[in-house]
Amino acid sequence: MRSIITISREFGSGGREIGKLLADSLNIDFYDKELLEIASKKSGICEELFVKHDENYTNSFLYSLVMGSYPVGSDGRINTELPLNQKIFLAQFDVIRQLAEKGPCVIVGRCADYVLRNQDNVINFFISGDMLHKKRRILERYDIEKNKAEDFIRKTDKRRANYYNYYTDRKWGEAKNYDLCINSSKTGIEGAVQLMQDYIKIKEELS
Amino acid sequence: MRSIITISREFGSGGREIGKLLADSLNIDFYDKELLEIASKKSGICEELFVKHDENYTNSFLYSLVMGSYPVGSDGRINTELPLNQKIFLAQFDVIRQLAEKGPCVIVGRCADYVLRNQDNVINFFISGDMLHKKRRILERYDIEKNKAEDFIRKTDKRRANYYNYYTDRKWGEAKNYDLCINSSKTGIEGAVQLMQDYIKIKEELS
Repeated sequence: MRSIITISREFGSGGREIGKLLADSLNIDFYDKELLEIASKKSGICEELFVKHDENYTNSFLYSLVMGSYPVGSDGRINTELPLNQKIFLAQFDVIRQLAEKGPCVIVGRCADYVLRNQDNVINFFISGDMLHKKRRILERYDIEKNKAEDFIRKTDKRRANYYNYYTDRKWGEAKNYDLCINSSKTGIEGAVQLMQDYIKIKEELS
Repeated sequence: MRSIITISREFGSGGREIGKLLADSLNIDFYDKELLEIASKKSGICEELFVKHDENYTNSFLYSLVMGSYPVGSDGRINTELPLNQKIFLAQFDVIRQLAEKGPCVIVGRCADYVLRNQDNVINFFISGDMLHKKRRILERYDIEKNKAEDFIRKTDKRRANYYNYYTDRKWGEAKNYDLCINSSKTGIEGAVQLMQDYIKIKEELS
């Protein structure tokens, strides 16, 4: 298996777990939040800022002022430096490309499918899920009130979609952007991994 | 296999051929344009009108007047009859439900996933494809100039999307609406059928 695998996922669909199991079964590296630490080390921007901006596109004027990233500086001159959130995106972008050059791996989220769009050896998966299953999964893993879980899921996905739609010319979650999209509520976690393995086998037989 | 299978598809992705092969392999009935003839016979509306309105949502005032389907009649009174395109949609809707009651089958397009959304035994697939492959496929099958193929594909898909988005509360082609979405350009026709069979096997093992 010489492919780079990207996994985009709805919050609560088990995308991270599915990606980890797939990477383990293929004996290749796995990157999800691990990307942030690597990008922080390479760029010199502190990791907390990567976590704060993780798949989160903020375009508020006030926020930019507070973060010192507004394009007009305090002296009234145009700030030629890139806004912080864009610096952070570009640092992640570089890390994704470097990891893909190193060899086969699984990368979760962070527009990796778009960053690597011009490479042939990339497989793009998308994992969705039914709200009932996603709520159950989130409630098991996060300390959140039951009646707030659905709102939490919708807002997280909205943030992910905004981030993706801002930095790419595509729409997050549209089937046509991905090679295979699986509803994990219907297959279970193991079933989704199995289908991905089946997909990889079919592709390998074709090439 | 006791499931009803719906297949939504981009124009030129091979969705019809994939659906037919899947139906044959499962030894179940297959309905694509065949639906129009059945709906015409059951409703008494002539088949040409079904073909004209097939996955085509028209909301033009002039068109409604010409077709005699505008809600105000020539005597100035409100026309209590449904517009023709809605009658046609409802006739198809009824046929899809009746076919699903009869037993397992494959139904292509025509919002079947939405019509059958409250049934448990339904599997919803979506087939996409890369533009290059879709163009090649269309040029082999339709008498159309090479430089017009891409436009033809985009317009057909736009019409299908408008139709779906008008009659349902969902968006055509969004991964989350379907159980499995496959890019047939990556798997080939046979590979897509294989993945659907794998999916059905996984689901059957779970239930």
